[in-house]
Amino acid sequence: MPSPSASSPTIAVVGGGQLARMMQQAAIALQIRLIALVESADSATAQVVPDSRIGRADDPAMLADLARAADVLTFEHEHVPGDVLANLREAGYAVEPGPHALRYAQDKIAMRERLTDLGVPCPRWRVATTGKHVADFGDEVGWPIVAKVPRGGYDGKGVALVGSGDEIGFPMSAQQAVLLEERVPFARELAVLIARRPSGQMRTWPVVQTIQRDGVCAEVLSPAPDLAPETARRATQIAGTIANGLDVTGVLAVELFETRDGLLVNELAMRPHNSGHVTIDAATTSQFEQHLRAVLDLPLGDTAQRAPHAVMANLLGSDLPDPTAAYPRVMAEIPTAKIHLYGKDVRPNRKLGHVTVVGDDLAQIRAEAARAVALLSGKDNA
Amino acid sequence: MPSPSASSPTIAVVGGGQLARMMQQAAIALQIRLIALVESADSATAQVVPDSRIGRADDPAMLADLARAADVLTFEHEHVPGDVLANLREAGYAVEPGPHALRYAQDKIAMRERLTDLGVPCPRWRVATTGKHVADFGDEVGWPIVAKVPRGGYDGKGVALVGSGDEIGFPMSAQQAVLLEERVPFARELAVLIARRPSGQMRTWPVVQTIQRDGVCAEVLSPAPDLAPETARRATQIAGTIANGLDVTGVLAVELFETRDGLLVNELAMRPHNSGHVTIDAATTSQFEQHLRAVLDLPLGDTAQRAPHAVMANLLGSDLPDPTAAYPRVMAEIPTAKIHLYGKDVRPNRKLGHVTVVGDDLAQIRAEAARAVALLSGKDNA
Repeated sequence: MPSPSASSPTIAVVGGGQLARMMQQAAIALQIRLIALVESADSATAQVVPDSRIGRADDPAMLADLARAADVLTFEHEHVPGDVLANLREAGYAVEPGPHALRYAQDKIAMRERLTDLGVPCPRWRVATTGKHVADFGDEVGWPIVAKVPRGGYDGKGVALVGSGDEIGFPMSAQQAVLLEERVPFARELAVLIARRPSGQMRTWPVVQTIQRDGVCAEVLSPAPDLAPETARRATQIAGTIANGLDVTGVLAVELFETRDGLLVNELAMRPHNSGHVTIDAATTSQFEQHLRAVLDLPLGDTAQRAPHAVMANLLGSDLPDPTAAYPRVMAEIPTAKIHLYGKDVRPNRKLGHVTVVGDDLAQIRAEAARAVALLSGKDNA
Repeated sequence: MPSPSASSPTIAVVGGGQLARMMQQAAIALQIRLIALVESADSATAQVVPDSRIGRADDPAMLADLARAADVLTFEHEHVPGDVLANLREAGYAVEPGPHALRYAQDKIAMRERLTDLGVPCPRWRVATTGKHVADFGDEVGWPIVAKVPRGGYDGKGVALVGSGDEIGFPMSAQQAVLLEERVPFARELAVLIARRPSGQMRTWPVVQTIQRDGVCAEVLSPAPDLAPETARRATQIAGTIANGLDVTGVLAVELFETRDGLLVNELAMRPHNSGHVTIDAATTSQFEQHLRAVLDLPLGDTAQRAPHAVMANLLGSDLPDPTAAYPRVMAEIPTAKIHLYGKDVRPNRKLGHVTVVGDDLAQIRAEAARAVALLSGKDNA
């Protein structure tokens, strides 16, 4: 909640990556002071947030200091201990989303159980603690199946495709359960971004199509092309059911499979999400501004998209020592490209930035975004 | 020019106000590191630029330090000594715009002389050093006339309307000339924003209408409603003539009077300008991003406006101790309002922020922007 004093709102954000970095752009406009808890002094966020404090996201004393210094404590990732957050809430500090909600973004088994209780359509799933559980589930739903480590995975890490007779590749025991899911024969992947305030107001953006490569989001088309209005409504309704049912605050991303038989929920994220970066340049209110409004329990902004189409393409690694070296070429060739780089050192397949192009002609802007990313990758002859 | 090294571009900016603050939002996206020379640790810019250095804009050692630390030195205001900048250029540092261009934004008499040489239409003007000069000019062009202190004025300060027999109200002597101008019977005021690279590329945004109150910009309509295409072309052409003729780099704002007999140039600013704030939310490339690109001699971005109309209204002072106290109300009433606050303490008539609304219906978005500003001003019953 905004402080009752005359001073501007202050938000503490746990995490020093590109998401907190992009929150700062929105915070500057709204005269919101950010305090960031970062891993290192040269992190993506620390480069642009003057009040960046170096520490661990699981350090209770550090989290308490942050909560005390701000009107609300929020997150750019889920790797924060729920018991620490629960203690802070009990001590009267605002923590949004709350640990009771965040839990379902931290633990995929808890998420599947809760979504199933809520009647939200999911792939068939099972908790496995023995090899027999795995074999039985695969025989039942058909091989191969998908195995997921319940906690700590991201961007395809902690996820494996398992064929009949394969080892699942993760430790598994009575104490260490693994989530099994059927491999869904989807037509494509969609995502719905929804923001929700503690007092209940919700807003969604247009449903987008996400295109993954090697388990990592590579491209987002907004809105999802040729999406049946009924499917869009259903996707939005599912997101609302989850946001309300889990008492999510801030931005929630719901990743969905579109199948012949309808929609199935794949993953959740309770924070601004890669599938929503397109909103920075395409929507009246970006996911980052909306997250700040939502966690402060301020009224949410308009989410209309300003052009018929928008495309976002991720920059995943680069052959250049620094992608900005491509600026003379990429800016000359594609003056419509909105370039976002995160201030990270180049490493193979690392998310270094993204490019958004907004316009009327989907095929054209898709080609422009892809070309811009190719140039930033150092692939001049693409 | 960008550094030939592998590292990202660095820009040093002189000034700690809202313009450098808004440059930071664009710099974050492009992974450009800003170094700001600010007046105080709590200035609008220092709040959001980690590498803010406190010092005076006329301190040669400080300016040399900045130039050394960055790929280019630029400005958010004109109050920087030209000889210091000339020395830096001679020593091989990039300074954009150069002092030979900046001079015409620093000295209104030099500006009038140069524009007249370039054939750019100006109000009738004269340099006065005696009371007789004033009386003769007023008798010639008609009373009242406008008197301007050549250096250091802004937002209506240093400008006076002088009737027959009035004192001009400024010191005037053989050593201290005053610029006299006819009072132009204009239909309205327009502004053209143009960006130019050292290598010559130029881009303009749509011509806007500016509405002043008490000599201060209160509102901007983009594009200027019902502007004859021929007048828009002529305004853009004038801006190009000035940018080329004065060798301007970065963003140049040209303020114009639209009269029955054509356009006349009122004022120039060689930096992002209040008349261009609307580009943040309405154009593909904002004036702030374009200024950063231009001073680095990078290709300029697309300047198309994304909707038929955009309106910006300034927040000039507030009855609230902090305008953010109005957020619950203004965000609820006007979810389309793009709110920008500058982190400044409230003082009467001070530029504290602005609101932009983009849309199809000019009358509606104008009312929305005005209402948002009224609420941020604490005028709840407006």
